[in-house]
Amino acid sequence: MVPRYSRPQMEAIWSPAERYRIWFEIEALAAEAMAGLGTIPAEAAKAIRDKGGPRAAAIGEAEVARIDEIERVTRHDVIAFLTFMSEGIGPEARFMHQGMTSSDVLDTCLAVQMTRAADLLVADLDALLAALKARAMEHKLTPTIGRSHGIHAEPSTFGLKLAGHYAEFARGRARLVAARAEIATCAISGPVGTFASVDPRVEEFVAGRLGLAVEPVSTQVIPRDRHAAFFCALAVVASGIERLATEVRHLQRSEVREAEEYFHPGQKGSSAMPHKRNPVLSENLTGLARLVRGYATPALENVALWHERDISHSSVERVIAPDATIALDFALARLTGMMEKLTIYPQRMAANLESLGGVVHSQKVLLALTQAGMSREDSYAAVQRAAMATWEALGTPGGRDFRANLIADPTVSAVLSAAALETAIDPARDFAHVDTVFRRVFGEA
Amino acid sequence: MVPRYSRPQMEAIWSPAERYRIWFEIEALAAEAMAGLGTIPAEAAKAIRDKGGPRAAAIGEAEVARIDEIERVTRHDVIAFLTFMSEGIGPEARFMHQGMTSSDVLDTCLAVQMTRAADLLVADLDALLAALKARAMEHKLTPTIGRSHGIHAEPSTFGLKLAGHYAEFARGRARLVAARAEIATCAISGPVGTFASVDPRVEEFVAGRLGLAVEPVSTQVIPRDRHAAFFCALAVVASGIERLATEVRHLQRSEVREAEEYFHPGQKGSSAMPHKRNPVLSENLTGLARLVRGYATPALENVALWHERDISHSSVERVIAPDATIALDFALARLTGMMEKLTIYPQRMAANLESLGGVVHSQKVLLALTQAGMSREDSYAAVQRAAMATWEALGTPGGRDFRANLIADPTVSAVLSAAALETAIDPARDFAHVDTVFRRVFGEA
Amino acid sequence: MVPRYSRPQMEAIWSPAERYRIWFEIEALAAEAMAGLGTIPAEAAKAIRDKGGPRAAAIGEAEVARIDEIERVTRHDVIAFLTFMSEGIGPEARFMHQGMTSSDVLDTCLAVQMTRAADLLVADLDALLAALKARAMEHKLTPTIGRSHGIHAEPSTFGLKLAGHYAEFARGRARLVAARAEIATCAISGPVGTFASVDPRVEEFVAGRLGLAVEPVSTQVIPRDRHAAFFCALAVVASGIERLATEVRHLQRSEVREAEEYFHPGQKGSSAMPHKRNPVLSENLTGLARLVRGYATPALENVALWHERDISHSSVERVIAPDATIALDFALARLTGMMEKLTIYPQRMAANLESLGGVVHSQKVLLALTQAGMSREDSYAAVQRAAMATWEALGTPGGRDFRANLIADPTVSAVLSAAALETAIDPARDFAHVDTVFRRVFGEA
Amino acid sequence: MVPRYSRPQMEAIWSPAERYRIWFEIEALAAEAMAGLGTIPAEAAKAIRDKGGPRAAAIGEAEVARIDEIERVTRHDVIAFLTFMSEGIGPEARFMHQGMTSSDVLDTCLAVQMTRAADLLVADLDALLAALKARAMEHKLTPTIGRSHGIHAEPSTFGLKLAGHYAEFARGRARLVAARAEIATCAISGPVGTFASVDPRVEEFVAGRLGLAVEPVSTQVIPRDRHAAFFCALAVVASGIERLATEVRHLQRSEVREAEEYFHPGQKGSSAMPHKRNPVLSENLTGLARLVRGYATPALENVALWHERDISHSSVERVIAPDATIALDFALARLTGMMEKLTIYPQRMAANLESLGGVVHSQKVLLALTQAGMSREDSYAAVQRAAMATWEALGTPGGRDFRANLIADPTVSAVLSAAALETAIDPARDFAHVDTVFRRVFGEA
Repeated sequence: MVPRYSRPQMEAIWSPAERYRIWFEIEALAAEAMAGLGTIPAEAAKAIRDKGGPRAAAIGEAEVARIDEIERVTRHDVIAFLTFMSEGIGPEARFMHQGMTSSDVLDTCLAVQMTRAADLLVADLDALLAALKARAMEHKLTPTIGRSHGIHAEPSTFGLKLAGHYAEFARGRARLVAARAEIATCAISGPVGTFASVDPRVEEFVAGRLGLAVEPVSTQVIPRDRHAAFFCALAVVASGIERLATEVRHLQRSEVREAEEYFHPGQKGSSAMPHKRNPVLSENLTGLARLVRGYATPALENVALWHERDISHSSVERVIAPDATIALDFALARLTGMMEKLTIYPQRMAANLESLGGVVHSQKVLLALTQAGMSREDSYAAVQRAAMATWEALGTPGGRDFRANLIADPTVSAVLSAAALETAIDPARDFAHVDTVFRRVFGEA
Repeated sequence: MVPRYSRPQMEAIWSPAERYRIWFEIEALAAEAMAGLGTIPAEAAKAIRDKGGPRAAAIGEAEVARIDEIERVTRHDVIAFLTFMSEGIGPEARFMHQGMTSSDVLDTCLAVQMTRAADLLVADLDALLAALKARAMEHKLTPTIGRSHGIHAEPSTFGLKLAGHYAEFARGRARLVAARAEIATCAISGPVGTFASVDPRVEEFVAGRLGLAVEPVSTQVIPRDRHAAFFCALAVVASGIERLATEVRHLQRSEVREAEEYFHPGQKGSSAMPHKRNPVLSENLTGLARLVRGYATPALENVALWHERDISHSSVERVIAPDATIALDFALARLTGMMEKLTIYPQRMAANLESLGGVVHSQKVLLALTQAGMSREDSYAAVQRAAMATWEALGTPGGRDFRANLIADPTVSAVLSAAALETAIDPARDFAHVDTVFRRVFGEA
Repeated sequence: MVPRYSRPQMEAIWSPAERYRIWFEIEALAAEAMAGLGTIPAEAAKAIRDKGGPRAAAIGEAEVARIDEIERVTRHDVIAFLTFMSEGIGPEARFMHQGMTSSDVLDTCLAVQMTRAADLLVADLDALLAALKARAMEHKLTPTIGRSHGIHAEPSTFGLKLAGHYAEFARGRARLVAARAEIATCAISGPVGTFASVDPRVEEFVAGRLGLAVEPVSTQVIPRDRHAAFFCALAVVASGIERLATEVRHLQRSEVREAEEYFHPGQKGSSAMPHKRNPVLSENLTGLARLVRGYATPALENVALWHERDISHSSVERVIAPDATIALDFALARLTGMMEKLTIYPQRMAANLESLGGVVHSQKVLLALTQAGMSREDSYAAVQRAAMATWEALGTPGGRDFRANLIADPTVSAVLSAAALETAIDPARDFAHVDTVFRRVFGEA
Repeated sequence: MVPRYSRPQMEAIWSPAERYRIWFEIEALAAEAMAGLGTIPAEAAKAIRDKGGPRAAAIGEAEVARIDEIERVTRHDVIAFLTFMSEGIGPEARFMHQGMTSSDVLDTCLAVQMTRAADLLVADLDALLAALKARAMEHKLTPTIGRSHGIHAEPSTFGLKLAGHYAEFARGRARLVAARAEIATCAISGPVGTFASVDPRVEEFVAGRLGLAVEPVSTQVIPRDRHAAFFCALAVVASGIERLATEVRHLQRSEVREAEEYFHPGQKGSSAMPHKRNPVLSENLTGLARLVRGYATPALENVALWHERDISHSSVERVIAPDATIALDFALARLTGMMEKLTIYPQRMAANLESLGGVVHSQKVLLALTQAGMSREDSYAAVQRAAMATWEALGTPGGRDFRANLIADPTVSAVLSAAALETAIDPARDFAHVDTVFRRVFGEA
């Protein structure tokens, strides 16, 4: 992932040096397990740990370059790494990797990296959820117009909007936790998963120490449906980011102006137009969502490996495992900051709510009419007539508003007095159940 | 979905008539709930149920056409349906749909359809799992070569291969059950989810009767991350289908011939070449997997609806909800039948296993050499030398096999006697842990 | 594709009966070519044409069912068709399909169907281009605000917006014409493309009669990169549809109200809210665009068939070839109608243009200041200052507009008189080059 | 893109420093154009070029960091760059970027980068085409079995296989050239594409100098359908890579062994199994193809920007423009090297061709029988009977081959003598038209 969209903690998980350190840990743990089972000498395991540990810990740019150099000859990354480690460990190094296959190391390492990445993403989501909850509580009863099809529908509150996004990200978090569990497995089962040359207890030991489950049945690799499900879970979270980003972009439109991304001192909105303050963060998040979603497709294509494995998944994962997790980590952090600092304009929300002459109360009138005995069809026709007349007169000086148009309609006034009309459209009714929803979402109102 | 890939039970879920019947059930239940709360007269709810029930039950092609005709005027499907029902129910029909919005009906109906579809798919998976388990048990110890990169690696058993696919589909089933729970929600919350004109207890009542959970917070619609997660779950199952289909296609290759799709009496493999027996079912499944995967992308794009909803998701779902579930239902059933009837050729598996002169035992020799004191690097070089010599001589009359080449190598024979070599590569060791894996996968060995 | 999104002419191309009729035409032409070359008796070709022609022409539902019935035994569609035709043609039928393979028929038929579908889509695009051009000419100089990031930027014209969409669809048309040429090939080259049993001149003859090019080199099939490129071309057109649909959705928002989809007499916008008039057509188009885009992914996955072919592409194409072309045909026609009837509100456009107190002229002031000698940085700061002050005062009674704020700034008034300011922001300058753009796009202004 | 899959020449196009240099070139050319038109002083343009040129040329890591630092304040990349340049140019810098908007620079720069990238990719394809042609000519008449469904079908030649891939990449090249032309446009049209503050002749001048066409109508940006079509073209090329890679993977399978990727001295195929020589390059290419294909989806989603533009496309393009072109460049170069060095085993091809007892000649017998007067149905049955008997006896000592089974069938021998049978299946007939195909593909045979 490009530096612009990378945060250091997530990036560190995917660094070559960190990868080698995890490889070593797996090899050292496996050797210790084998020593415990008597498969290799206890001194060998000790030597691997004692001499290899510091060597692995010290891997930096120069050592990575040295391993790369060996790989250019062997054309095999794990063998290059083992050769590099052997140089430091000495003859006991031959007891490393006994009966194992490269994928035992590679796939268990990937599981360690992906679970760490998932942990960061879950923490990111927790921060986002906290921010959303705080803003939702703050604006629990801030009236705003609810819109369907981009058209004013009925009153809602800004807190309710945010509660919906909160609930969506809470679901995303649950899916991510489930997906984390799916990819948190360890396979040390040999070239075709038969444990022909490695005892299953080695796998159990290493898994336990790394906080992973054993992979019940592997081929040469951990099955890729697990990873596909993981990337799909990221894709759904990304789509939720896009939904909230799209909401903010809409609210910041010049004609709406109900909310605005924080505009920093010194910030310039446009090189050409000094008046511009643009929702660039939420637009950026929209693009990042597309990226993260896009990585799900190759992850799905990775599942159908040939026989006990082919290596076609590897190039895909070298790219998308860091790219998808780094981009999503960045996006979640950006979104959290953006929501925390979002400038919200309740007056503007109130003004927009009233800007259509009251037609947004049409359903309540419709109900009042049907309850007063008018047929649904007639009620609908009367209300639509009044609403359309109001709409046509919008902005016209002296144009009648929705209430006036209703009262002027004899079929309406025949069944509904002006007072009854006011009662019917009392805005207090609109928010009577906000508490119910908040209790459902936050467990408190 | 085209008839060729449709099975009647799944197709029925998505028929227009069934959709209208579910709509009616939602409206009738909502009316009953409202009557219980005193919002509408009890007689109205009774009339809706008593007169509407038979009318809805009788919806057939003619009635669908009549509703379509009304829709051509109203340009709104739910209003067209309500109008049609009103014609049969009479004046009390005006109490139908009180305070509700179309999406309350549409989305709750979709939840009913998708959960039913999910139930069929889970049953399909159960049948597939049973078939795979039976064949896995049958071939638990049938030796076959494990292959990585399409190259012979080490011995495995055909049962182990199938155990891996079994475990993958069991995970797919678990994901589908989770995804089913995600989309099994009912929303009856009015135009922007505020319950402004409908009591939340109506939602609770209808949800309970339909076996759904209430949607904790909806906009005008049930949030689409739920559906996106559902289609992703289908996509991962589809990829698992492709993996097994690819395995069968490989096994049936002319050069491999280890398994073969059942060839029916009367079947013709090719219009031109009467000798052909092709793995057409598994190829077909490969294509169906692509289709089902392809539907995940638009489902993900459906999440970011505008504000409290726009209707862009609707056209997508009208197509992919039936198409993805129908195609997957067909594919799972086809795969189950194919696996049940798959002709398996153990002799051919045995012959292939031995066809490379014994090089497939190379890792066991490598281990024996390192345990006998040779360095890992020297051992690797010796074994690779013998393996490559064996490879070059393949098919040459009198060519030395792997054992012979090893014994002929003085660096090998210096540390490993011929007898020790035989012990090292004893095939019994290869399958010593098959029981362990079977216990992990099937809970029994 | 569901009936709701299907138009009869496009649907007819993909009907089973039409498919069989095209198959027959290919077989009959091939027989005639072979007769011409003396490979089969001239009377045989004549019998095939004379007896087979009417039989093929008469294929209806019953005949399709009969062929399906035969296929249930042969499990091979082309053989089933040949058997059906043989029943009508008699013994000379054995000269049909000589040296050919099923794919010769299937793929050439698909080429015929796809080229016909492409022709319809090109005609659809022509109608859309005509509609866009007419509306662009009509509103060539209708002032409207140009928006970037959803924020008012600088004045533009509604005609210019439409010119941009026109140019995009003109490019889409050109890509579609190129893609049509790509899939317009005929392959009659036998089981593995060697012409071992069929003379290449047969392919040339059939291609010529069907208006196709010969496929220079086929395997058993016409290579699928051609089809992938075709579906990608559809996907790009679909994305262009989404762009225009998104524009209309924005323009119809309650706060914007610059344009509106035609609202039919009798139409109902919402079952709950009689005041609603929603941009449902453009939202529907947005969803259809997602569908058509989604079909590109499986089409791309179809390219890498095994060896001389496998049949995995077939199930994909049975679904996406009709679905993508039918949905796009429907979408283009719907979009054309929508644009022809789109209600446009120039007064509202004018009002919105002025609604931000004149800040939309900021760049012209910036330029005037730098040309009057102020540094770019100072100019930017001054203009941004005035714009922000204007922004803050928006809607406040007595709030100063942009011009007033500028004049009140001594650093500005020091270099720019009020008169010079007026000259600088003269709106006439904004549209001075509309003619240039129209000439570039339409070849006329 | 990760370093492992990056080649320096392509990477250089996308470096931050190169990007700034191109930005400067655009700004300097625009200034020169404006000076020519008298919009800005000639000395200003000269100062920009003379002082800015060296400053831009000297941009290295430190300067990039400095610009990044400015961007952290302005939060706008182009303004940060202009500020940096102004520091070196002095007061005349205020004449830079006059009347332009950031996107004028950004999008024209992207066009320069993408056309350069396309040029490299076209050169890559030329090298690949040369390699494929050389190998195709070399093996024009090397017999090999053609396979459909993975099953032996009829004889073909290895050269014919390669000719098919050659033709596919030649089409890919043509599509890429077309896509290059699509994205080779320059837009300098101001904030909303009206040329309100910049003369269209500036755009024409800059376009001409940069070897680009003018964008006939832009919004704030160059329309993104162009870029979407470009990424689709890359995706189709990538799918062609996967097809050839899949072919090699199949040919290298242990059971097939007809071709093999070059195995370097020192290379190790497996950390566990020294006998392994794996088709890792072609598997790697398969994965890279998935990646490149995956980038097409977000590119398509980038098309529907809001109004005159939003910036959601930017984050997508910052990632996929380098990633897709770098990965494809690497993949094409890797594939070319792989094909040049591919070890081909004609003897093994010949052995496989004969391994099914001659059934691969079934169609020729079928034709001979029908031409000898037997009905198509009877002929098919007889040939299938003989083929199946041959198949059953495969590998059985003394099992009859296809010829023997045919002659032993009285219905066959009644119409076809043994001599006639030999004539019918003469292998010379199989390759009679290879010259025709080669002439069509290469223009020479």
